[in-house]
Amino acid sequence: MTPLDLDRRNDELAAWDRDCLLHPTTHTAQHARGDTPGRIVTGGEGVFVTDRDGNRFLDAFAALYCVNAGYGRTEIADAIAEQAHKLAYFHAFAGHGNEPAIRLAKMVMDRAPDHMARVYFGLSGSDANETNVKLAWHYNILRGKPEKRKIISRWRAYHGSGLVSGSMTGLKVYHDRFNLPLDGFLHTHTPHYLRRPEREMDEAAYLDFLIAELEALIAREGPETIAAFVGEPVLGTGGIIPPPEGYWARVQALLAEHDILLIADEVVTGFGRTGQMFGSDLYGLRPDFMTIAKGLTSAYAPLSGSILSQRVFDVLMTGADDFGPLAHGWTYSAHPIGAAAGIATLDLVDRLGLVENAGETGAYLLERLRERAEGHRNVAEVRGVGLLAAVELMKDPSAGTWFEPMTVGPKVVAEMARLGVMTRAMPEGNIVGFAPPLCITRDEVDQVVDAFGQAIESVLGA
Amino acid sequence: MTPLDLDRRNDELAAWDRDCLLHPTTHTAQHARGDTPGRIVTGGEGVFVTDRDGNRFLDAFAALYCVNAGYGRTEIADAIAEQAHKLAYFHAFAGHGNEPAIRLAKMVMDRAPDHMARVYFGLSGSDANETNVKLAWHYNILRGKPEKRKIISRWRAYHGSGLVSGSMTGLKVYHDRFNLPLDGFLHTHTPHYLRRPEREMDEAAYLDFLIAELEALIAREGPETIAAFVGEPVLGTGGIIPPPEGYWARVQALLAEHDILLIADEVVTGFGRTGQMFGSDLYGLRPDFMTIAKGLTSAYAPLSGSILSQRVFDVLMTGADDFGPLAHGWTYSAHPIGAAAGIATLDLVDRLGLVENAGETGAYLLERLRERAEGHRNVAEVRGVGLLAAVELMKDPSAGTWFEPMTVGPKVVAEMARLGVMTRAMPEGNIVGFAPPLCITRDEVDQVVDAFGQAIESVLGA
Repeated sequence: MTPLDLDRRNDELAAWDRDCLLHPTTHTAQHARGDTPGRIVTGGEGVFVTDRDGNRFLDAFAALYCVNAGYGRTEIADAIAEQAHKLAYFHAFAGHGNEPAIRLAKMVMDRAPDHMARVYFGLSGSDANETNVKLAWHYNILRGKPEKRKIISRWRAYHGSGLVSGSMTGLKVYHDRFNLPLDGFLHTHTPHYLRRPEREMDEAAYLDFLIAELEALIAREGPETIAAFVGEPVLGTGGIIPPPEGYWARVQALLAEHDILLIADEVVTGFGRTGQMFGSDLYGLRPDFMTIAKGLTSAYAPLSGSILSQRVFDVLMTGADDFGPLAHGWTYSAHPIGAAAGIATLDLVDRLGLVENAGETGAYLLERLRERAEGHRNVAEVRGVGLLAAVELMKDPSAGTWFEPMTVGPKVVAEMARLGVMTRAMPEGNIVGFAPPLCITRDEVDQVVDAFGQAIESVLGA
Repeated sequence: MTPLDLDRRNDELAAWDRDCLLHPTTHTAQHARGDTPGRIVTGGEGVFVTDRDGNRFLDAFAALYCVNAGYGRTEIADAIAEQAHKLAYFHAFAGHGNEPAIRLAKMVMDRAPDHMARVYFGLSGSDANETNVKLAWHYNILRGKPEKRKIISRWRAYHGSGLVSGSMTGLKVYHDRFNLPLDGFLHTHTPHYLRRPEREMDEAAYLDFLIAELEALIAREGPETIAAFVGEPVLGTGGIIPPPEGYWARVQALLAEHDILLIADEVVTGFGRTGQMFGSDLYGLRPDFMTIAKGLTSAYAPLSGSILSQRVFDVLMTGADDFGPLAHGWTYSAHPIGAAAGIATLDLVDRLGLVENAGETGAYLLERLRERAEGHRNVAEVRGVGLLAAVELMKDPSAGTWFEPMTVGPKVVAEMARLGVMTRAMPEGNIVGFAPPLCITRDEVDQVVDAFGQAIESVLGA
């Protein structure tokens, strides 16, 4: 009897997992065959999670950089429980609503930049990005510019994995074998000095290059065909890459010149991860749309949002007066359970000072990673902002030679897991990403950095 | 001081609602200005909901035909509360998982037709339909047929309001002023005898016409360019229209002949509404993808699903072995809170016999509506199946003349609300829709039908 047979006989939960559930972003065949054991997570507390087999991990990626307030927060669970018993659901169509959704909308707008006007609540970052594209098109049609509809994104961007949000994403693995990107979704260069086209280019010249390339793309396509530029203030899944100094100011000037809207995808950066409430605050962005999710509820319940600027909202008002109700809405828009989780989460973010902790303990994380990793012969870059950090590995940084993508990074991450620390190998590179809950302490950061140090030496030598 | 000013001064909740929240499918400008008062729903019990102003309604549309188990179900709220305290969230990427998602997957697969193989959990019907299109494209690319990607839907279909799901939808209000449908999303005729092109056509001739039109569309586009046909077993938001006798058998034969996949959108019909577990069971569909949401959790928490057939799953397995992990997944896929709500909901559906009640009390609703409405000079049709019913109004049914869309239907629905019964005016017509919680009793049906009878006489005369 093979181990798999034993498992099938004795453990119906593992068997059902293999036989019934298609997991997201998982090797479908290996999982179905049981080649790779699943990990069933059963509980958590602070920055730690436990699985069904009794293993305990320090989760240095906050699941998918979303459990920002940490695991096991009774305050959020209580809020969900109370709302579930009071009114689990009613729709928000045709002016109907529920109290937690309204209260959360007020809390979000109090925190958003002053020029923003309204928030629409969806479920995932993917659907909120799709809402933003839909409303950007609608805005231009209402202004008499139906041809102004292309979307410019960046290579290595991550905006979701739907057909529209995946088209905005700039990672090949989300395009190949899926017919993506759809027509009209364009990509410009990843703003990452390490990936500059010529090694001798200095940082100022590289920034000039990025802006010239974007300008050339706009000119080539025609600004009258371009609706919006979408960007994460700090590139996330594409490698946790803070922007070059001065990048956003130059990009915004160019967009303003050509009447191109800015969609700031704050799914990862929103609600404190960078040490400011929003990445837009940190980099001086003045977006027309902000995409929020993850930190909004610390993932305790699904909820996303699209925050609209006053100038977009004004046009939508005119559109409604001319054409009637906005034909957009999910059944679960403004869901009371998600809204209750959001209120409790944003209260906790304030009460525990998580934005400040992200700034301060984030700086400590970056400093400790630099101490531990810089100088290692394969470490090309240690980078980050707030509680977002990454170490990028190369075969020979001084010669500019790369490892084959996803060969070394996943090994380091697997070794760290063996040592009890969860991190993430970012796709299409060899990049170890760090994005712990925003409540992480310096002691816990030390545990993460120690595990990283051991793992990198174990995989690549001292 | 106007009433609006008073409201602003005294009622911060109403003011925040107007000033902060963009509601789905709402007149943006009227809501923001306070021209139309919002309705803040605060609680519910069985088929009844109450609002903040002390009004009580019999909700004969189950919110958006989703609160199938009824309001105030402690069993579902308790399950959500327990899971929120145990583990509100961990991701399901890379083979990770959580116990409720696995258990629910098993329960869904036990209820799905035998030829189905796996379920992927998303959040909304819209995102599940998008997942199904993405996987249909992926399936054809893996089979070496990348050009086989167009999607055929029907006019008056409703599959969501995203850019992809809204393209599948066949209602103009979701297309106009949004640049939709996207390229490659086609629509064939609404299968509705009342809307036959020539009044003298009999039902058999009409069915021949529908099939010939679909065949002509396939021939015109080329079957080698068509990936899938998507349909609700019973058209929902487009008017609650059961299919003509024999329709699905003929459609399926045509699809099989041309290697076109069938996506059955069971968001409305799934989990009992038609009196069978799925609409596919009732009409003998053998889909490659089933889209589920609403009834899966009775809307107590957001959760949707894509159920895949074995033949699709087999190709996905090969794809994973050749190319690695499936690059598809939302952060909130297989969310524990939604899964816990789903388990409790499906248990309740069984325990309370809601599928059977939908069949029996649904038949009673249809019979009572027919008694009350047929014979009224403006009633063109009373139709339905299970606890899905509609009354369609025309200026003169015998002469075949229609009212201007959305003129009379909304008035009847508003009058019913005044009488304490919520129903829905279906878009692009004058159609009063009924889809109460599946726990509705005959006495409650009588209340609904009495209110309808009064309302139609009040709006249109006896």
